[in-house]
Parts: sequence; structure tokens; C-alpha cells
Amino acid sequence: MKRLTILGATGSVGTQALDVIRKTREELSLVGISAHSNWESTIQIIEEFNPKYVAMTEKNAFEKIMNYCKENNKKIEVLWDIEGLNIISSLPEIDIVLTSVVGMIGLQPTLNAIKAGKDIALANKETLVVGGQIIINEVKKNNVKILPVDSEHSAIFQCLEGNSKEEVDKIILTASGGPFRGKKIDDLENVTLEQALKHPRWNMGKKISIDSATLMNKGLEVIEAHYLFGIDYKDIQVVIHPQSIIHSMVQYEDGSVISQMGTTDMRLPIQYALNYPKRRKAVGEKLDFYNLEKLTFEKPDLNTFKPLKLAYTAGEKGGIMPTILNAANEAAVDLFLNKKIKFLEIGNILEEAMNKFYSCEALSIESIIEMDKRVKNYVFDSFKL
Amino acid sequence: MKRLTILGATGSVGTQALDVIRKTREELSLVGISAHSNWESTIQIIEEFNPKYVAMTEKNAFEKIMNYCKENNKKIEVLWDIEGLNIISSLPEIDIVLTSVVGMIGLQPTLNAIKAGKDIALANKETLVVGGQIIINEVKKNNVKILPVDSEHSAIFQCLEGNSKEEVDKIILTASGGPFRGKKIDDLENVTLEQALKHPRWNMGKKISIDSATLMNKGLEVIEAHYLFGIDYKDIQVVIHPQSIIHSMVQYEDGSVISQMGTTDMRLPIQYALNYPKRRKAVGEKLDFYNLEKLTFEKPDLNTFKPLKLAYTAGEKGGIMPTILNAANEAAVDLFLNKKIKFLEIGNILEEAMNKFYSCEALSIESIIEMDKRVKNYVFDSFKL
Repeated sequence: MKRLTILGATGSVGTQALDVIRKTREELSLVGISAHSNWESTIQIIEEFNPKYVAMTEKNAFEKIMNYCKENNKKIEVLWDIEGLNIISSLPEIDIVLTSVVGMIGLQPTLNAIKAGKDIALANKETLVVGGQIIINEVKKNNVKILPVDSEHSAIFQCLEGNSKEEVDKIILTASGGPFRGKKIDDLENVTLEQALKHPRWNMGKKISIDSATLMNKGLEVIEAHYLFGIDYKDIQVVIHPQSIIHSMVQYEDGSVISQMGTTDMRLPIQYALNYPKRRKAVGEKLDFYNLEKLTFEKPDLNTFKPLKLAYTAGEKGGIMPTILNAANEAAVDLFLNKKIKFLEIGNILEEAMNKFYSCEALSIESIIEMDKRVKNYVFDSFKL
Repeated sequence: MKRLTILGATGSVGTQALDVIRKTREELSLVGISAHSNWESTIQIIEEFNPKYVAMTEKNAFEKIMNYCKENNKKIEVLWDIEGLNIISSLPEIDIVLTSVVGMIGLQPTLNAIKAGKDIALANKETLVVGGQIIINEVKKNNVKILPVDSEHSAIFQCLEGNSKEEVDKIILTASGGPFRGKKIDDLENVTLEQALKHPRWNMGKKISIDSATLMNKGLEVIEAHYLFGIDYKDIQVVIHPQSIIHSMVQYEDGSVISQMGTTDMRLPIQYALNYPKRRKAVGEKLDFYNLEKLTFEKPDLNTFKPLKLAYTAGEKGGIMPTILNAANEAAVDLFLNKKIKFLEIGNILEEAMNKFYSCEALSIESIIEMDKRVKNYVFDSFKL
């Protein structure tokens, strides 16, 4: 039995994690949850899973949950904001923290959990993208595991099991290519928000759907993979694989390629991370090779999908640069989601921010948070929001 | 440095194994070799690799090598026949035996090697097909490893590394489908030997090429997989995958499928088996996913390719039945290679032999060798050869 906290329990990954727990109750026990503003879903989770701790990061939602617990005589510790996240991610009674919040807010509680000796099921990209150097140091120091929840990194993790890292030739990250695969720059000039949100394979949140359309999502995954697996950027290859059946691969120096495949069901990597090192009965469908479509592979077009190229640049530059990239991207995607900018402007904003803000200062949680704010403010100010 | 004996050094797998040794001399040292009648190639191997022991199974070839060594003042122990194979497969100075002879003759020396505590790089199908029960018992008793050299079993072996066998849902053996993939029974009525020998993907010996055309090769691999990995027949699935890029897969109970891929170069699984548990620098080409054709999958047609269906039946029946199947197949393929029978008669001969010879007697090396002879004699007699 593993006892866990879910940071971001009402989001896309959080909700699917709850379904995994629902179907494997004898193996997983939910101790703490957090949510931002969605108090209605939080109440449903309380009713169904009866966690001992609930942290809300929005004030109104926090009060709603406080009142609800009072009125219904629930013995639940209700907490607020980042302090709440820090508390529920380092509880003595938990084994593992699923970090499925979106954005920079995941960084501090994840670091706290690591320092408290908890394993991390990681679905929050920013943790490694901006804080990779710091996080990986703490992971080693505290001898905990980071179990990736991204389908790609879960695949790579599985393809490395039973093998020696010294024998890795390269990591091959697969990418669906998003809704605009095969398009050229001119084709993307006037694409709409609705078109960009239509991901062909995965059912995901809005931010990550846009990141998939720009290939920024893959770029962030390249940086994550670098820290998670300790692999040089030159040995991380992105391959477009539109069917998303092969979730990623590892090529070894003898020429052997090990891949992990599965349906496009996030519950598979979630389940793997939460139950590691054991595998449990599938909660979703299995692949049927007698009825599988053809699998194809393409080279990504780094000219059209500039954010992927910029991510390699930012990753290789290192230090604070991935923070700049990520902050500029969060702001730019926000602008795009609010229809303030056009699709192709996202890449331009990233490039501009990377040129403007880079400095060689030492990396710390404080410098990351500070730079994140500065970059976002700059981007938002540029568009007078 | 691993020191090895190659049984069948002049055959298809043996020759490719020599190329692996040629390219990785600092890791592999050739101590003993055997060949049947091909004394010219044997002399070349002696010149290049200078083995200490050479066993020939054909009398004339044995004498040629004896004379050659005498005239050239070579300090080589030249041995003859099955006794020679037994000696060179259990030498104190070797670590591993590559069994790449074709046919029943591999069984006894492989068993000898296991009893002498040698690991086995196994390219001889018959060893496990007919002697699986006996061999696996001895492997456990002597705590040695069987490292498969078939690309499919090497793939499965690699896909199981770092995982628990208890969590395996099924093994998925891929098959190219051979030169007659997609054909129906009526289409195969009058196919020629030349058509049957034209394998679309792999460059192999004649016997195995015909076995690939009938899918008997895959049937024998199913039985091998059963013994090698301890998996029930109902959990071994054959999938036609014409591109032969995915060499085989393992599906786990959580729905995750791990696959191994590579070019169609036998040196890859040979190298893996000989160097296990290490991987070494590739001796051949690596896959390039930016220029890879599409990968497709189909259900095999067990009606047209009856030998595959019969292999499942023989495997499930167990005992002496796989020996009957294998002996009938060796004889039938021999007849077909000599243009004495038509292609589809191969399957009929297997079926007839399986109906005629089955008995429940206890399995022993003697009973296997005896049954092998009886079945072959019967098949050859039926065709008055």
C-alpha cells in the first residue's frame, strides 16, 4: 500500500490519477490533495476519497472548503496557498507525491517533498525545466526517486530499466506533431485558437495543448529528459510519430533500440509511476496489434516550429535560460489563449525574451522565481495587459 | 574477455559471429570451432583466428584439416564427429558456447556444455524445440544462462530485462510473413523452390528460409519461447510485421508494451548474446528514424500457413510431439529443397506425422534421437528416397 499526496487533484492529470486510485484502492491510499479554485470538484474528491489534508491555493475556494468541512463535520485539515502545498507534500504519513499542478507553483513543494525523503511522481514540467539543476542535486542527496508521469519520460524510464546508462547512445523522444504537423510557416499565419487546441491524439489541458501545437511541449520535454536521465542534449533526438503508439525509445550503443508502447491513456504512465517498481493490472485498454494502424516517423521541422529549436538552445545554455524560455512561453500561451496574439508570435516572444534577459547569475529557487516574474511582466507589458 | 567455442562456425550464424569477433577482438576470444564438411572455410578461420580446437563432423573434411594442420605445423587439436563437438563445447578454458549448428546434432553438445557450467548463446532451434524440458531442467540445475541468438528471442530477452516475469501479460513474437505473406492456399499450389527461398528481409540459410516461407520457423520459435521464458502457449502471440524492424515485444499486465528494434542484421543479437550483460559498440548499421519506412502489423493466416498452427498444437501437447513435428519438418523441407514435393505438402507431411507417431513415453535424449530417426525415415520412405 502506497500513501500519497496529489498536488493539483482537480486538473487533467490529477483527475486521471484519481481514477487510477479508484480502480486500485488496495494499492494506493490518498492522504492529501491540493487544488487551486475548483472547490466543487474538491468536495467531490473529499466525498469519494476522504483525504486527511486539503490545500487550496485560491482564497475563496479555501473558504468554501473550510465551510463545507465545518458544516459536514469532516475531520480534514484544510490549508491555504503555497504553505499548504508545502505541508501536504512533506507529511510524515506519505510515501510519494504526485506533482500535477501546472506552472512554477510546483517547484517549491516538490523540492520540499524531496527534502522530506518522498519519492516524486512528476507531471509538472516546470520543476525540471527551470529547477533541474537544483532538483537533481537534492534527489541525489536525499536518495529519492523521480518517477516521470509524462508518457514520453515514463517510456524512457522503462526502456532504461535493466540497462546501463553508460551504454546509452541516444534517447529518442517521440512527438505526435500536434494539430499542425506538416504545415509550413505560411500555413500557420492565421490559425485560430480552436484549431490550435484540437490535439489529434491526447486529451489534455489547454496550456499543454497549445504547447503541443507549437512543439514547445516537446522542447520542454527535451530539457526535462536532460535532467531526468543525465543525457547530453546532442544525444536527445525528437522524432515525429503521429500515431503516438510508441511513447519514446532508447537507442543503445550496440544499435539495439528499446521502445515502450501503449494506448494514448495517461493513466498508464500515472499508474506506472505510482506503483513503481511493480506493475499493476491495467486500468485502461491494451494495444491490439492485430488492429493497429501503421506507425510512421518523421523529422521535426525546426524552422516552422521554432519553439522546439529554442528549447534546445535554452537547454544547452543552461542556468537561468530555461526559466526565461518557460516564463516567456507561459505568458505567450496565456496571451494566445486570450486571443491577444497570433499563433506564430509565441515563438517570436520566446526568442525576444531569451535575447533580452539572459544572465549568468547563480541558480537558486529565489532567482528562478524572480526571473519568472520579470519575464512574464515584460511580456504582458509589451502587449499592454 | 570472454572465451568461446562456436559450433557450426562456417554456417550463416557462425560466419556472422566470426565477424562480430573480428570487430571486437579485445572482448571475445575464439578457442574452439566446429564445422561439418566445409574444410576450405575452416582453414580460412584457422588462419585468421587461430583456435586451439577444431572439430569436423564429416570424415573427409576431418582428414583434410588433419593434413592441413600437419603440413602447416599448426598446434591445433583436430577432433571428429559428435565426440569432437562434445569435447569443444565443454572445454575448461571457455566461458560460453555459441550453438549455431543446424538440426538435431546441436542437442547433445549443448547439453554437455550446460552440464560443464558453460553459458549458451543459442542459435540452434532444435535444442529447445525437441529438448526444451530436459535442457531447461539442466540450465536451472547448473545455474547457467541461455542467451538467445534468434533476433526474436533476443528481443524478448531484452524486453524482459529489469522487469518481473510475474507481470508479463503476453509475449508478442513478430514475423516478417516470409515471401508468401498475403497469399492464400490456392496461390501457393505451384510456387517454386526459388520463390520460396527469396526471403524479403533476412539473409539466411536455405532450411530456415523455407521454414520462414511456411511460417514453420515462427512455429518453432513459439515452442522455443515457451521453454526459454516459461510462458504458456496461450500467452505467446504471433504478429506479422513485414518490415522486421520490431524484433519482438513483451506486453505487461499494466498494458505497457516493451519492444526491441534494430536493423535486420543477425550480428546484433549475436553480439548481444556473446557480450551479455554488457552491450558493446555496434558492428553494423543503426536504425535511422528520420528515414524509416512505416511499420505495419497483421494477424497471421493459420489456415494458409498450417505449420504455424501445428506448432502450437505440438507445443501444447508437449512431450515427444515437438520432436515429431521437427523431424517431419526437417525431412519435408529436405524433400522440398530437392524438388521431390510441392510447397503445400510440407504442412500435410507434418500433420500426418503428428497423427501417426505420438506416444506418451518419458522424454530422454535417447527417445528424442530415436523418434527423430523414425519420423525422418518414415517421411523419406513415403517418398521413396
